[in-house]
Amino acid sequence: MDVNWIRLNEQLKRWLQEDIGRGDQTTAGLANIDKVLGQGCWLTKASGVICGLPIAQRVFEILSNAGTAASSVRFEPCVIEGEWVEAGSTIVKLQGPLAHLLMGERVALNLAMHLSGIATVTREYVSEIQDLSAKLVDTRKTTPGLRELEKYATRTGGAQNHRMGLDDSIMIKDNHIAAAGSIALAIESIRSRSPYPLSIEVETENLEQVEEALEHGVDIIMLDNMSPAMMKEAVQIIRRYGSQVKIEGSGNITIETIRAIALTGVDYISSSAPITRSSWLDLSMRLDPTKL
Amino acid sequence: MDVNWIRLNEQLKRWLQEDIGRGDQTTAGLANIDKVLGQGCWLTKASGVICGLPIAQRVFEILSNAGTAASSVRFEPCVIEGEWVEAGSTIVKLQGPLAHLLMGERVALNLAMHLSGIATVTREYVSEIQDLSAKLVDTRKTTPGLRELEKYATRTGGAQNHRMGLDDSIMIKDNHIAAAGSIALAIESIRSRSPYPLSIEVETENLEQVEEALEHGVDIIMLDNMSPAMMKEAVQIIRRYGSQVKIEGSGNITIETIRAIALTGVDYISSSAPITRSSWLDLSMRLDPTKL
Amino acid sequence: MDVNWIRLNEQLKRWLQEDIGRGDQTTAGLANIDKVLGQGCWLTKASGVICGLPIAQRVFEILSNAGTAASSVRFEPCVIEGEWVEAGSTIVKLQGPLAHLLMGERVALNLAMHLSGIATVTREYVSEIQDLSAKLVDTRKTTPGLRELEKYATRTGGAQNHRMGLDDSIMIKDNHIAAAGSIALAIESIRSRSPYPLSIEVETENLEQVEEALEHGVDIIMLDNMSPAMMKEAVQIIRRYGSQVKIEGSGNITIETIRAIALTGVDYISSSAPITRSSWLDLSMRLDPTKL
Amino acid sequence: MDVNWIRLNEQLKRWLQEDIGRGDQTTAGLANIDKVLGQGCWLTKASGVICGLPIAQRVFEILSNAGTAASSVRFEPCVIEGEWVEAGSTIVKLQGPLAHLLMGERVALNLAMHLSGIATVTREYVSEIQDLSAKLVDTRKTTPGLRELEKYATRTGGAQNHRMGLDDSIMIKDNHIAAAGSIALAIESIRSRSPYPLSIEVETENLEQVEEALEHGVDIIMLDNMSPAMMKEAVQIIRRYGSQVKIEGSGNITIETIRAIALTGVDYISSSAPITRSSWLDLSMRLDPTKL
Amino acid sequence: MDVNWIRLNEQLKRWLQEDIGRGDQTTAGLANIDKVLGQGCWLTKASGVICGLPIAQRVFEILSNAGTAASSVRFEPCVIEGEWVEAGSTIVKLQGPLAHLLMGERVALNLAMHLSGIATVTREYVSEIQDLSAKLVDTRKTTPGLRELEKYATRTGGAQNHRMGLDDSIMIKDNHIAAAGSIALAIESIRSRSPYPLSIEVETENLEQVEEALEHGVDIIMLDNMSPAMMKEAVQIIRRYGSQVKIEGSGNITIETIRAIALTGVDYISSSAPITRSSWLDLSMRLDPTKL
Amino acid sequence: MDVNWIRLNEQLKRWLQEDIGRGDQTTAGLANIDKVLGQGCWLTKASGVICGLPIAQRVFEILSNAGTAASSVRFEPCVIEGEWVEAGSTIVKLQGPLAHLLMGERVALNLAMHLSGIATVTREYVSEIQDLSAKLVDTRKTTPGLRELEKYATRTGGAQNHRMGLDDSIMIKDNHIAAAGSIALAIESIRSRSPYPLSIEVETENLEQVEEALEHGVDIIMLDNMSPAMMKEAVQIIRRYGSQVKIEGSGNITIETIRAIALTGVDYISSSAPITRSSWLDLSMRLDPTKL
Repeated sequence: MDVNWIRLNEQLKRWLQEDIGRGDQTTAGLANIDKVLGQGCWLTKASGVICGLPIAQRVFEILSNAGTAASSVRFEPCVIEGEWVEAGSTIVKLQGPLAHLLMGERVALNLAMHLSGIATVTREYVSEIQDLSAKLVDTRKTTPGLRELEKYATRTGGAQNHRMGLDDSIMIKDNHIAAAGSIALAIESIRSRSPYPLSIEVETENLEQVEEALEHGVDIIMLDNMSPAMMKEAVQIIRRYGSQVKIEGSGNITIETIRAIALTGVDYISSSAPITRSSWLDLSMRLDPTKL
Repeated sequence: MDVNWIRLNEQLKRWLQEDIGRGDQTTAGLANIDKVLGQGCWLTKASGVICGLPIAQRVFEILSNAGTAASSVRFEPCVIEGEWVEAGSTIVKLQGPLAHLLMGERVALNLAMHLSGIATVTREYVSEIQDLSAKLVDTRKTTPGLRELEKYATRTGGAQNHRMGLDDSIMIKDNHIAAAGSIALAIESIRSRSPYPLSIEVETENLEQVEEALEHGVDIIMLDNMSPAMMKEAVQIIRRYGSQVKIEGSGNITIETIRAIALTGVDYISSSAPITRSSWLDLSMRLDPTKL
Repeated sequence: MDVNWIRLNEQLKRWLQEDIGRGDQTTAGLANIDKVLGQGCWLTKASGVICGLPIAQRVFEILSNAGTAASSVRFEPCVIEGEWVEAGSTIVKLQGPLAHLLMGERVALNLAMHLSGIATVTREYVSEIQDLSAKLVDTRKTTPGLRELEKYATRTGGAQNHRMGLDDSIMIKDNHIAAAGSIALAIESIRSRSPYPLSIEVETENLEQVEEALEHGVDIIMLDNMSPAMMKEAVQIIRRYGSQVKIEGSGNITIETIRAIALTGVDYISSSAPITRSSWLDLSMRLDPTKL
Repeated sequence: MDVNWIRLNEQLKRWLQEDIGRGDQTTAGLANIDKVLGQGCWLTKASGVICGLPIAQRVFEILSNAGTAASSVRFEPCVIEGEWVEAGSTIVKLQGPLAHLLMGERVALNLAMHLSGIATVTREYVSEIQDLSAKLVDTRKTTPGLRELEKYATRTGGAQNHRMGLDDSIMIKDNHIAAAGSIALAIESIRSRSPYPLSIEVETENLEQVEEALEHGVDIIMLDNMSPAMMKEAVQIIRRYGSQVKIEGSGNITIETIRAIALTGVDYISSSAPITRSSWLDLSMRLDPTKL
Repeated sequence: MDVNWIRLNEQLKRWLQEDIGRGDQTTAGLANIDKVLGQGCWLTKASGVICGLPIAQRVFEILSNAGTAASSVRFEPCVIEGEWVEAGSTIVKLQGPLAHLLMGERVALNLAMHLSGIATVTREYVSEIQDLSAKLVDTRKTTPGLRELEKYATRTGGAQNHRMGLDDSIMIKDNHIAAAGSIALAIESIRSRSPYPLSIEVETENLEQVEEALEHGVDIIMLDNMSPAMMKEAVQIIRRYGSQVKIEGSGNITIETIRAIALTGVDYISSSAPITRSSWLDLSMRLDPTKL
Repeated sequence: MDVNWIRLNEQLKRWLQEDIGRGDQTTAGLANIDKVLGQGCWLTKASGVICGLPIAQRVFEILSNAGTAASSVRFEPCVIEGEWVEAGSTIVKLQGPLAHLLMGERVALNLAMHLSGIATVTREYVSEIQDLSAKLVDTRKTTPGLRELEKYATRTGGAQNHRMGLDDSIMIKDNHIAAAGSIALAIESIRSRSPYPLSIEVETENLEQVEEALEHGVDIIMLDNMSPAMMKEAVQIIRRYGSQVKIEGSGNITIETIRAIALTGVDYISSSAPITRSSWLDLSMRLDPTKL
């Protein structure tokens, strides 16, 4: 799983503390809780794409490493990360100190439910266009603090990532053009000042803007909020131009409209829907306590 | 707005950095961007409850204070936090350095869209039961890192909060009872070990458990996943008992079922739906750049 | 030991750095110190309740894990956490790299001495009332940064904890009542706005206030700075009322007065004295260095 | 007030969060609390040396700056930091948003009470020897996390600081000597490896060790746990030697024994008592709320 | 100045603490230092490009804001950031509390001296090729913790930045090709998995590799460690190919060889020399203290 | 290796994140990279003193511990830290997951190259004076964030450290004297206020100042920017005085002038040149990937 684990470890500690606060007062109040083990499983209550199990595993590892407990949680996935699973399936078997299982339960499940929900909707969108060449990509509309994980979930669901932040590619919008004076001035200024390998994308809303962008040798042209017909024409203009510019269609993509957009011939379709319009996939933990 | 601002400021800085990374390379690439102001507004593209404006305002304040810019962003809400607003409304007017407006745009909007979505669904649930005595409360199913803000959003939508974490009240579930040996042993142990003002809630799934809980003087009884009929009977048992115990109904609450649950006579209905099943409320920013 | 280990680990690292700064220049100046082991013990120079050994152990574990040393410190308690020990007793045996033993010595001992001092005074107070039903509880008068540990020490000494902070129960004082307009308005407002499971405590200074509080169904009534006689009368009023309200006596509790307060029939006696009026329990470390 | 404010600000934020947690639920539950001001004072309930007022002031400034409150707390000391004040005195006048006054109350008072307690005991020890040339100095026995502030309190009480940590001077004890092989080897090794301006102190327990230390040109000789008679003899030996070495007496210093130690002629007397054996000075806050 | 100020503020605080530790004991030891102002200037002792003044200014602002000082440092640059200045010039005038000027002196000057040294060498390299089309770019060989500032210094000196880290563009080297099996497999795999806007660069060491890279439609070809003759031939091959691929020459660039490399026709010349082979530009601060 | 590992670990994590950002997109884009191992070595491309290998090793350990990789990097130094090595030597053998080797490469090498460059220049300076009694010491001119490591590098190169920061010894300069009124007043004030073990150094620029400093019993006299002749005379004055004061020569020390300064009889020669005027020692990593 390719995320920045160093940063993720710090986040997981903060998220555990958000839930735990000054301690799990319920388990702490049970005499001899240190001597009770639990074993059980995670079940799906709905069908969908499972995402986030390595992160959930890490949640319990962090709890096990933090204190002085003699034993630690064993967390064994029964499905492959990214697999589609039917409702009622066992997706994880786990056992360990009951106090740790209960203390980590919500952070681990909350993450897996949220990410699996995103991966599931992504998979649904992707399945609409999987016989076509267009690829689904995400956007910067992500829950603050969860950008990297939510974009991992869209990858897990079958999408590809768009840029990860404001610093890994250039996106010239109307405000930048207005600030610079013209699209030509904006591109010229940025090309000579920003890190030179960064690709340059321009947002266009009509065919005139598409042609202007083409003349200035940008790397990506976004066709924003165009009708499928106009989008198709824009694609033809760009392809005729002979350039290797990549074409991205965007603007209120839904499960109903995505295929029509893909049929226009664009290379990428960007949509925030898998992140902003998905519900959590319902998962639950079942445990049996046993005293040592 | 009653949140822990000291912690929230730290989070907002981290969230800005998540998006900005090593810098907004598009605006940084524009010569003289420091001399361009923007003014504009935030618009709703859908109707709903507005939530998160004070936080969005703080996002821009943090950007203004961080660096050496001569001027700062003015952010003026046009609606009251928690107000229901129709699609197409202007909810904020703002102006300031264009670079700051663009750098803070996504963090501020992502937060407001996410929180307004939660507040909107909360309002819908609450409106189903507002003539009844039962109150909607939330759960610990919250997005990691956003517990305090998401619970602020449910308050803004008209719900009341359940416990905020594992440490501010006691919740005895089946696993705790199994670990302790009996409900009596669990309560006795916890009562003498946990901070004494903490209230004690017990989850029950049938009428026998309700009666057992009543005998041990708990403060709150949760009726979990009971049919409305059984729930009603449970409420009557508890009320007959004469105790001041609070009654909470729970388990797969939906917009269709919430009223029936409220009619059973419970005091509180807990549901994660406003947080786990809401979409973002669609908001956008429009700007006009002007050079100094 | 039931503390939030994730947070405690961060604190222990900061506390080690407070003492170490840019390095233990004395041991760092000794050639070949890396090849010298130490073994020895911790001794009591006074009698009292031992508290903090698991934390002291963690201090040395953190030092051992931080660097590249080949071996690590073994820390073996000879007494049980919370045990009363006479002066001159060996309470810990330990061995490991001499540099680590000396670098961790003061943080580990300072914590154990401070916490054992608190636990010892707590035990003295508790022993005055152990045949009575009243329980000693602590307050929010704790050394900044050490709240969780100092409250762990009072538990270790035999007390129970009062609320841990401003967020895990409601405490209505005269200023809140004045701000709200009346005790009725204060309670009504708080009951509908704060997390619903939080219990509500009201501070009272005379019998009128006690009766007013009783009428509004609060969970806990604090009898603050009353004479034992008045306190006794207040207890009788409350008990006659038939409610399950808990009663807390408070105000300048000393080892001389605590029994009289307990005899009034209150359920809990809150006192900051074990934390604000205790001295450190005198402990010391003895080592024998041996070269490898 | 000469402390590292950059670090202290971070600590004060953490300490506020320790108390506040997820919010002051009592004041947050009061409708319109944002429109209530408070004004009042801090009173002494016992006599002693006042210490920590600039820090207490900063606590309220941090709260005022964190959020979106329209006004901020005014904090006006009525006494000079370090002044001896009788019981019943007003030491601070303050006014501002009631919510902020109540939220910062305990952190501000806890710090001031703890530090004033230390300064008061320090003053008592110092007054025993103020006509003599010996100066009282502190030790590394300080509460973890509070080293800098507690040492500020001993300065405020009239003592001078010993070293602040393991890195700002060299202290050679028996274990270092054993590890090095001899006192000569220890000094030689350290002198060539540690930062060259660091002064070197050696602990001695008898006159032979004093003479050995003298021969190796150390900067400070500590006379540890010697009788006043032996200490006096040691001082004479050192003075006769003609060196500029500083002499420190140490070991179980009490208010009863400190004068006798000072009369032996030592330059400094180190004692942990003002920190490890002091109680908090009793201070309280009185407020009058007024609605806007 | 376009850096991430939010992160930079955190770094400046850490860097101040690195130098200050537990306090500037020299100024803290001066009675009444709080009442002494200083005014003076920064002088160049050598000629070069000035870089880092806004950061130096921020150092003093952070000190002024941290504590309770009545006044703050005024810091007025006399030269423009990036200007070439002769030895003996006054580049900054400043005045404020003497303690703050002395406490911030080294952090502020160390940064400005280090960055100005880098900008100066960059300017020297750039001046060798300024009449040619090739541009100098930097590398990832930067001092840990200073990447963003050192790359700001190369921009200030006239270079353009290469990628800022491992995440803002793709760089395929021999090890990646070996791991993937072939250059075709590496590119295909990366193109479908990484954020789609990222440009792809391939390192080549001979003409065969250049042609292979061309066939797979990469965005940038690096010619690594080729002789000028081979590099020229590679450029011709690439240009003939008709593609818009950017060409980067690299490998042990020195002030003697850079022009020959530029004459081969490459678009960019990457060199770590301005960062890894520059000395600090010698700057000093002169002050006159005046008592209030 | 005697550094503060607790702090260093935190720094190494930050430095890795500075380079990695949101992930190494090149290796992350390679399918099955998790199953590819690499083995290889570090080579010197120039001769010099090797410094920083334990730190480089830790960089890879941190990467191995952060995530869920099955295996970890083995890092085996072939030379002794501080050894002089000729160009073309193998100094480290290493093997492990290819992704970790590539992700840690630049941080590990950048540190080792930078520190080895400093150690190498230090060795050159030291070798000029190794038959004399004077010792080379460093200054506070260090790269922000790297003070401890750069001073470790000068130790590794054969120098001794001067003070590590503003808090571990007193350095009285002209501004302090002006602020205090006279050198006598400055010393008297500081001696009674600062931690008493701190040694006191005074900067002098002529013989009158030397004599004034001598009269006040300072511990160290710095002879700043004096000619060798004047410095020699100053040394004689100080030695005649009979005191144990240490003498430090300073001011624009170069490899050409250091021997003349040492011959004046000073005890220490302070110079920032090894840090401010050194280039990185050229090192590189060679790897062979092998699939599992």
